[in-house]
Formats: sequence, structure tokens, C-alpha cells
Amino acid sequence: MNRFGNQFNISLFGESHGPAVGIVIDGVKPGLLLSETDFEADIARRRSGATGTTPRKEPDLPEILSGLYEGHTTGAPLALVFRNTNTHSEDYELFKKMPRPGHVDYVAGVKFGGFEDPRGGGHFSGRMTLPLVAAGVVAKKMLPCTFATSVVEVGGSADPAAWPGLLEAASQEGDSLGGIVECRVKGLPAGLGEPFFDTVESLVSHLVFAIPGVRGVEFGDGFASARMKGSEHNDPLERFPVKPGMTAGAGMTELRPAGSHAGGVNGGLTNGGEIVFRVAFKPASSIRKPQQTWNVAKDAPDTLVCPGRHDACIALRGAVVVEAAAAIVFAGLL
Amino acid sequence: MNRFGNQFNISLFGESHGPAVGIVIDGVKPGLLLSETDFEADIARRRSGATGTTPRKEPDLPEILSGLYEGHTTGAPLALVFRNTNTHSEDYELFKKMPRPGHVDYVAGVKFGGFEDPRGGGHFSGRMTLPLVAAGVVAKKMLPCTFATSVVEVGGSADPAAWPGLLEAASQEGDSLGGIVECRVKGLPAGLGEPFFDTVESLVSHLVFAIPGVRGVEFGDGFASARMKGSEHNDPLERFPVKPGMTAGAGMTELRPAGSHAGGVNGGLTNGGEIVFRVAFKPASSIRKPQQTWNVAKDAPDTLVCPGRHDACIALRGAVVVEAAAAIVFAGLL
Amino acid sequence: MNRFGNQFNISLFGESHGPAVGIVIDGVKPGLLLSETDFEADIARRRSGATGTTPRKEPDLPEILSGLYEGHTTGAPLALVFRNTNTHSEDYELFKKMPRPGHVDYVAGVKFGGFEDPRGGGHFSGRMTLPLVAAGVVAKKMLPCTFATSVVEVGGSADPAAWPGLLEAASQEGDSLGGIVECRVKGLPAGLGEPFFDTVESLVSHLVFAIPGVRGVEFGDGFASARMKGSEHNDPLERFPVKPGMTAGAGMTELRPAGSHAGGVNGGLTNGGEIVFRVAFKPASSIRKPQQTWNVAKDAPDTLVCPGRHDACIALRGAVVVEAAAAIVFAGLL
Amino acid sequence: MNRFGNQFNISLFGESHGPAVGIVIDGVKPGLLLSETDFEADIARRRSGATGTTPRKEPDLPEILSGLYEGHTTGAPLALVFRNTNTHSEDYELFKKMPRPGHVDYVAGVKFGGFEDPRGGGHFSGRMTLPLVAAGVVAKKMLPCTFATSVVEVGGSADPAAWPGLLEAASQEGDSLGGIVECRVKGLPAGLGEPFFDTVESLVSHLVFAIPGVRGVEFGDGFASARMKGSEHNDPLERFPVKPGMTAGAGMTELRPAGSHAGGVNGGLTNGGEIVFRVAFKPASSIRKPQQTWNVAKDAPDTLVCPGRHDACIALRGAVVVEAAAAIVFAGLL
Repeated sequence: MNRFGNQFNISLFGESHGPAVGIVIDGVKPGLLLSETDFEADIARRRSGATGTTPRKEPDLPEILSGLYEGHTTGAPLALVFRNTNTHSEDYELFKKMPRPGHVDYVAGVKFGGFEDPRGGGHFSGRMTLPLVAAGVVAKKMLPCTFATSVVEVGGSADPAAWPGLLEAASQEGDSLGGIVECRVKGLPAGLGEPFFDTVESLVSHLVFAIPGVRGVEFGDGFASARMKGSEHNDPLERFPVKPGMTAGAGMTELRPAGSHAGGVNGGLTNGGEIVFRVAFKPASSIRKPQQTWNVAKDAPDTLVCPGRHDACIALRGAVVVEAAAAIVFAGLL
Repeated sequence: MNRFGNQFNISLFGESHGPAVGIVIDGVKPGLLLSETDFEADIARRRSGATGTTPRKEPDLPEILSGLYEGHTTGAPLALVFRNTNTHSEDYELFKKMPRPGHVDYVAGVKFGGFEDPRGGGHFSGRMTLPLVAAGVVAKKMLPCTFATSVVEVGGSADPAAWPGLLEAASQEGDSLGGIVECRVKGLPAGLGEPFFDTVESLVSHLVFAIPGVRGVEFGDGFASARMKGSEHNDPLERFPVKPGMTAGAGMTELRPAGSHAGGVNGGLTNGGEIVFRVAFKPASSIRKPQQTWNVAKDAPDTLVCPGRHDACIALRGAVVVEAAAAIVFAGLL
Repeated sequence: MNRFGNQFNISLFGESHGPAVGIVIDGVKPGLLLSETDFEADIARRRSGATGTTPRKEPDLPEILSGLYEGHTTGAPLALVFRNTNTHSEDYELFKKMPRPGHVDYVAGVKFGGFEDPRGGGHFSGRMTLPLVAAGVVAKKMLPCTFATSVVEVGGSADPAAWPGLLEAASQEGDSLGGIVECRVKGLPAGLGEPFFDTVESLVSHLVFAIPGVRGVEFGDGFASARMKGSEHNDPLERFPVKPGMTAGAGMTELRPAGSHAGGVNGGLTNGGEIVFRVAFKPASSIRKPQQTWNVAKDAPDTLVCPGRHDACIALRGAVVVEAAAAIVFAGLL
Repeated sequence: MNRFGNQFNISLFGESHGPAVGIVIDGVKPGLLLSETDFEADIARRRSGATGTTPRKEPDLPEILSGLYEGHTTGAPLALVFRNTNTHSEDYELFKKMPRPGHVDYVAGVKFGGFEDPRGGGHFSGRMTLPLVAAGVVAKKMLPCTFATSVVEVGGSADPAAWPGLLEAASQEGDSLGGIVECRVKGLPAGLGEPFFDTVESLVSHLVFAIPGVRGVEFGDGFASARMKGSEHNDPLERFPVKPGMTAGAGMTELRPAGSHAGGVNGGLTNGGEIVFRVAFKPASSIRKPQQTWNVAKDAPDTLVCPGRHDACIALRGAVVVEAAAAIVFAGLL
């Protein structure tokens, strides 16, 4: 369903080319200072216009419909609405006839009986991540930790200097590139996460896999750990000075892992170390390069050239969305 | 929390060395034929005793406490209980004093204030996956699809002929190995999954990351897709004959993907193709090889040699658990 | 929390004197014809202006922000927003200093640390029932049943001819009156409701008790049944012709109760008969008649005369809200 | 579904004449002293054998399968199992043929397709309240408040001296009596409850209406408030000395209601006063007195005389169940 979370929970709505996209955020701590400008920085990180992202530019200022009084959150739900203004819907009629390979066009039709809004991906659009980013901003205001999230790989290269060339080349070919995002979170106390099913990894991956285009999630050494020995993978424990406000279990010393092989999570619980996880984004499915698909109108195979504005590499604007997802999860756990 | 799912949901309980582990399964279809022997095959797949797994052998027959009448499920909750019989608790006192690196020992103490049951990992034990496997058996009875789940990599090798040697060597060194499990599901209809947050990948990864030792989950090409171009990654669509019982959307032809780059999921919904996902298991953290940790009693660093019986490669018995997790998710979506 | 329901679920937001109140409705069947005028009839039933209700008059037209495409619901969430236009906030500063007896003023301050929006009751306002009524309109479009909901008692009188006089007299005295609403639902199939905890009565009462001012809920004979004998209270079963689209259990004849002592619910499940329940509304707490309260500024007892516009009998506009609550529950069960 | 609650949640299972009934309780605070004898007092309050209750006598000692270590709760789920020992299943075959008026027999068949366990009411049995009472015992260990719960009316009489005679007379006639239970809870802090939908009344009524035989729930003045004026119903606010451990909102004095017209709840939140609510129990539906029903085997009307052991007044053992329900709710809110 279109809601996520318990203590801190979100309800998402909207379509790419409908009147608006938005989110209702419940479980917000009362008394947080909040204004529309607080959203600017993260929304800018997600904004289109950079190389490899679509040229669609919208002001994307949220309207705060509720939950705010005299500049502070009230504890009642925050409703944030982003109006859609710059839409070229005519591009999308084509995809009803010729569903895009790798895209939800066809299965959305199966699921919603043909009533789904096809314009710009409708409710499945990457634009739905805009309100998610906004929820992340609110979540981060409730958290004691710091986030460092970045794209670490584009088109198979871990060297940022190489990316502009790779993106340019892909754009020229009308093709797209995948990428990898890494998120690091420092300053969370040990013991967050709920056994058995709401482990930190379970909750983070649940939300991250809802981001369009995500194909994989790994914590710490991730898939590489499958090629390691226990003696290599285990993070030794060491003592660290008790910080004010941090509590240890009855009679236990304050320990922390000496490394981040585990990604900051043991047994599904934060271990007091830095949280580290990586997210694989596939190359965007909407490409200008001709692809084979089925023409439903002709009931015959056909070649599709996707018109419209599309990101060459969705991982680029995915970083801040991944960070928002993590923030939403941790705000719920704290 | 210790429950998962909506339409088909499970509540897990138990500790490794307490009286029992068990599960309550709700949302079971009435009228399924069920008996205790139905659990034998999958439990045997999970059973200890194989090379690389612990020598602890238990009959592991479930007792069905409710939800069954005259050999059929009633639609009321099934409660399954597995008694614990073969326990050597004395091994585990040590870990309260010297928490195992890479293990939940220390953070469980932080979270539960020292009241957690430390014996055999307590509620965090791999033994908790036994009732999960049993729930998977029930789920599979409700599903139209077939599962093919296997270990595809051990200790970095994809060649099963090499595994006995690798496992033996690791055992000799008192060390452990990681591994990768692949799960393939055939026969699911298109359109399962719930946008925006309960995508197929979200739900499967949520449950799979609750399995002890999982470090990564990827669908289809997974992390490799981050190094692909859209033209390589997209699965072309092709037509296939309408099967009895399968329905297409209003006015739409029955299409399916020609490949499984997407792992059978587009936009978070099943696309009618085979579901493919892979799970990375870390090497087991409990090893005999000496490791550095902190001795809480002495408040000084110390060297730990884990006594007790431990799996050299938890991925080996992880395959059937991963399959159960997928089955539980799909039973809830259908 | 500010959400309710599973299959058909709602997320409520807004404050009486903030920018807007609204609701996100998920689980809406795709393909329903819907437009803003569909809400007019029920919103008119709730509208202020009648004797005994406040003179505040607002157009109260919802804006549909999402979930609609070419006049049909898409299956994605519907977001409905009602702008607040006619607000006199200056009335409410007083209640921060002198909390109203019987009102949430004081405990809301305790819960939200003084950050709650006090204007017009804020998030606790009766105006929050406006989006609930709108959700009821959508729910009723998904239901096969008919509703007959009415006020059956005002100020202790079951004779509607007497109500205008009673209301006028109460208004003159600056006082308020309680009332009782009865809701009858015809045409629901037998077997709705989920044992053990999501009985029909559990779900209906959960939502109905969230309506401001409700003090009691009873089904069928309700409290009177506590004074009956089993032989009087039990509804005999009789056979009725199988209706098209109605199914009986395996090998069972179609039976139905001959009466409605049980209110159409047995064992928490609909029994195929008419659903009947009654809801007691207290007299509104905001009255002009002087009341004793505590003056927080002076830290002394004081006498409060509530200024502002208030309903003399909230039960009058409660009927359509109660009906909406029932419709929301049954849309989720079907 | 068969689970309830969020922070403190329960999963119920079992059938009256199957192997066992039981409950899994999650969200239990670690470190509570707990043993099987802790359940004795409340189970005795519910026990059969008193006048007006069935002669079925069982030891009803729970087995604690998990969540306990060295006499303390661990924070992991508690699983409690009550074995069924004293069952006379032959009594119940009759009701498949001749469904009892006022009972779930018929609609359970519709819902579960005839696969439900019919013996002793199966999963709908009043015996399911035994594990609920046990969960209440655990909940009360987590609560700072005291409960006073009693039967206040039997067969229409509020005079306990009259009850034995009324019960005896009803038994002689093979009939049953309704009754009313009142529950009072002292010592809860102000501000519990979650707007908009998880008000105290919503949560309590949700769980209480799941108890078999409940027909009505009212708080404070309840239905009588519908006949009152605001000036009569409102509880004036008065100041009371700040208690250690009790906190007021920012800048607010500690106030409390001078009466309990509101039942201790304003705007869905506890107001710091005593919680008061009443529950109407119908007369038991299984009676020896001949009743008209439909004979499914003959497809004709027929007269039923219920054999078996049944309570003359289920309200008598309902009191402790109502108290348990309230305790479960408040443990989740605190």
C-alpha cells in the first residue's frame, strides 16, 4: 500500500502529470521549527537539470497544508503538496499502445484494468520520490545522526572524473547507465531495530526497494561478504568512552565494532558503529535507442523509440532519495 | 516486531535453548489438507548434519496446536510448536563476558537490558528459522507457483564440486565461509505487489533480511545492472498464448518479458516472468579461530575462541529459509 | 494514529483554522466514476446552518489532487483537500488560558507540549469529520448495500416534532443537547468480519468512537439486551431464497435471522440480516452558559463563557459522519 | 485478524476442543518477574463453576513456552499455551445440522466453507478469552494504574443480593440472562490515546467488542449523556498538586476533571481522571429452552434444545476479560 512505517509513518499520493504529488507525514515530534525553505537543499540535490538527468525544471516548492502552527510542528500530521506545472502529456499515449520494455506500463495495465494514469508514469513515476525526499527532511530534523550519501559508481566506473564522458556518450547513443549509491549514517545509538522481522536491514531495504529503479541493496561488505571468511568479516569489539546520553545494558561496558564489515548492524540491530549500505540502480528503462516490444494495437512485434525527457542515469538523483528512505526508517525506530 | 505480513501473517516466538520455538500463522485458506509429515521435506533441507553445518540433530517434528480439524485447515490460525530437546547451554555463559565479534551478543544486551536469553543466541538464534520454514510449507500449499532455490556460491566458488574441500579446510582452520543463495519462482500471475511501498522487492527483502546472516539482496541482474546500459538491461516484451485462469488488463494483449534481467518485477509488480533473486550470506560469526574482542569482566581486550557447535557455512541451510520467505510473501499477495 | 483501515484505508490531516483539512484514501477500486459533485449530497447533510448547528457556512468543495484520470478512479490513492476559508481565530486564545471543561484543550496541551494548534479545536475539531464524510462517499461507491441513518433522539426526546423547541430553548440558555444516531445497513452478505479481533462491531466502534463527542455504541438490542433473556434476544433462523451473487457455505442452506436483536452480527460476523447500531453523542462541550474551570494564567478558579460559534447538538450533523464510518469499515471488509 | 495492538501486541490461536488455546504476546518489557502462578488469580476470576457459569472445570494452568529466562521476561515474545483436557465433543454435531439462533454456527460455515471446527464453538468459543485474560495479567505488570472491575447488573437487577435467585430461576427455565460490567481504571497519566483514530475509546471498544457476547460499550455517562445538557455533562476542571513523575504541558498547570461524566477521556485522550466504562453482555445464546431454528438436513423449520454445558450469564466471567482488554490497550499506549 501507499503508506509506510509505524511510529513515524508516511502516506504518499499523486501522479506525475496530475494536479499534484504529496505526502502525509504522521508521528512528527511537536515543536520542530519548520518552514518551506527547509526543503530547498534536499530538493535541489534531487532536482533535474544536471548532466544525465532530465531537463524538466520545476520550482518544486512544497505547500504545507497542515501540522504547522506559528512556525513549529504541532504533532498532528504534516501534509505536503507539490503542484505539477510543467507537463507534456502527449508523449505518453504511445506507451499504452507499445509498452516500454523494462517499464511498468504493461503490468500496471494488468493490475489496474487500464484505468491507471499513463501520463509520465502516473503513480509509478520517479516524481513520486519528490515527496519522499521532503519526508526525509522532516525525519532528519528528528534524528541525532549525520548522513553522508553519494553516488559511488556510474556506468561501471568509480571515478567521478569519468562520469561526464560516460553520460555524454550514453546520451548521444540514446541509452542510459546504471549506478550505485552509498549511504553512511553516523551517530545512531546501539540497539535500534526490532527482532525478528523489523531488523534495520529489513526496514531500510523495504523502503529503498520502493524507489523506482533499485535492483539491489547490501549492508557493510554486502555481496563481498559471501566471499569472505568469518575471521576476515567479523568486526572486533573495542571499548570507547561512555558518551553523555548513551546508555549501556545493565552491567555492560560500552563497546563498539572496530570496523564496518557488518555495516553497523548485528543481529538486525544497530551496533553503535557507522551504518553503511549500498544501493544498485538499474539504467533507466525509457531510452531513445530503438528497442523491441509488442505493439498491442497491431498485435505484432514492433520497434519503440521513447520520446520525451528521461534521465540518462537515475542513480544521480537517487542518492538523496536513498538518504531520505534511511532517515524515515530511523525516525521511526528512535 | 515479531510478526510479518497482512493477509497472510506470521507471529514468531521462542529461544534456541528455551522450551520451544514456534509460529502462529494467520490468513491460512480453509480446507487445505495438512499433516505434520507435510513439513518433513523442507525441514530435512534445513536440517543440521551436512558438511559445513552443525552436528546438532533434532527430530524437529512440529506439533500443530490449532487451526486443523479432521485433517484440513479451518481458516483459524495455525499454531506450530517445535520443542527444543538437545541443548548444551553451558557453552554460552562465556559470551556474556566476552561478546562475540560480528554477533548480536553485545547489542542484544544493550537493547534488552541484560535480560535476554543468551543461550544459543536465544531469540536471535538461527533455530528461529525452523518455524519460518514451516510457515513456508503452509504458504506453498496456497500458491500456484513452483520454486527452485539453491546455493550457487560457497566461499567464493560457484563450482559445487569444490565446496566440500573449501568447507573442510575452513573447518580445519576453525573458520567459516560465506555463500550465495538464488531463488527462482515460476508461475506467478502478473500484477502482484502493491505500489508504492509494498513492492515485490520491498516485501521479499524485508523478510529475507530478517534471516540471520543475510548481507545483501538483489533482483534479476542486481548489482550487475548498475554496470549495464538500458539497452542491455531491458527485457523486450513478447506475446504469449493466453493461459486459462490468467487475465490481461482491459483491452490488453497478454505480454511477457523475453528475459529475466528485471528478475520478473517491473515497477515493483510481478511481470508474469520468472522471479529471480539472490541473497548474500555472510560467513558465520561464531568461529573457533581466535578473535579479538573485549572482556567485559576484566574491562580489557581479550582473545576469544568460540566453543560450541556452529555452522561453517550458514548459506547451506539458508536456501530453504529464503524460499520460505518468498513463499510467505507471495501467499500474502495472492 | 491518523490512519485507519487495511484494504481500504484513510489518512486524515488538517486543522480547523489552518490552510486545509483533507484525507488520502487508499485501496479504492479502479474504474469508479467520480467527480467533485458526487460529494455534494453528503456534505450538505453535514453542513452547518440548520437549527442547532453553527452558523459557519463554507462552500466545502473538495479538490481531488490525485487518483483520478479521465473521470475514473485509477486505483492509486485519492487525495481530497478542503480549504479553510471562514475562520475567526481570535475567539480561541482564551481557551489556552482557561481550558474548556469537557473539551480536549487541556489534555492536548499535555500531550503536544503546548505546540498544538488551538484555533477552532485544531486537529481535534469537528471539522475533521468533513474529510471523513468524503471518504464515506467513496466507500459507498464500492458497496452493494444501502444505508438509512438518522437522528433518533435529541435532548432525550424521540419525537422530531419536539426538537426545534428543545434546541431553541437550549440555545437561549446558551446550553447544548445530546442525541442518538441510528444507522441501518441493508444488503451486506453474510460472513464479513475477521475473528478474533476484527469483528464487525470492533471495527465499526473503533472508527465511530473517533468521531468527536461519541460516548457510546451499541449493536442490535445493545444495552437493553443486558436486561433480556436468551429466549427473547436470540433471532430465530429462517430460510430465504438464494439470491443471485450470494453464496452459502459448503453444503449449507441459505439462512437468515428473523429479527435484528443481534443487530445483524453473530460472533462478530455479519449474519446476512440488516446491520443496526446506535451511537450516543454527548451534548457539545463549548457552551455560552457560564462554567467553572481553572484559569491557568491566574492559577485560580474562574468562570468561563465560551464565545464563538458552536453547535447546540452535534448529533444532528453526526448522522452522516456515523454512516461514513460504517461505509469505510465495510468497504475494507468486502 | 487474530492479532491486536502495535507496541504491545497479541496473537491469539486455538479452538475450544482442539489440542490447546494460546497467545503470543509481543512488546513485553524486559525484566518483569513472571511465573505461571502469577496467572492464577485472574484465571480464577474467570473460572467456571460459579452459579450461572458452566460446570466445566479445568486446571487452566498456562505453559510459558518462550520469552522467559531465569524468572524474568526477556523482551522477546511470550508464548502461553493452555491445553484443553475436558471436552465432550459429541454435543456439538447437532449444531451443524441445526444452527443455534443467536450463535455464530451458521455464518462461520458461510465464511469458512464448512471447514471450521464446530466443537464447542471452535475458534469462536468463549474459551478463547482465557488466553486474553493471561495477556491482561502480563499487561497489568507493565502498568502504573489500578483496576476495579465488577458486574454491576444481572438480568436487569443492580442488586447483587437478587442475582442468585434470578440465575437459579433462569437455569430452571433453561434460559440465560444478560448483564453489565463496569471497569474503572485509576492512576493513568493524562494524554494517552492517539488522535485521530486511535482514541482511548476506539482502542478499548475495538478489543472489548471482540469478546463474545458484547452488545454495547459506553464511556462515562455513556448513553445517558445523550439526555443531558452540556452544563450538566461537562466536568469542571480543578487544580491538583503536581505528583512526582507526572508532567504537565509546557507552561501549563496540572489540572484534572472534578467528575467522571466524560469517563476520564476528552478528545479521545485520557484526562488524568478515573477511566470509567461499561459493557453490555447479551444473554448467552446456547439455551436448553426450546427455540425455533432451521434444520438444514431436513430443509425445514425445527425446534432446538441445546444440550451441553453453558453459562446462564456470561457477564459473570466477562468482568475479568473486560479488565484484561483494557489493560492490553493501556499497555500499548504507555
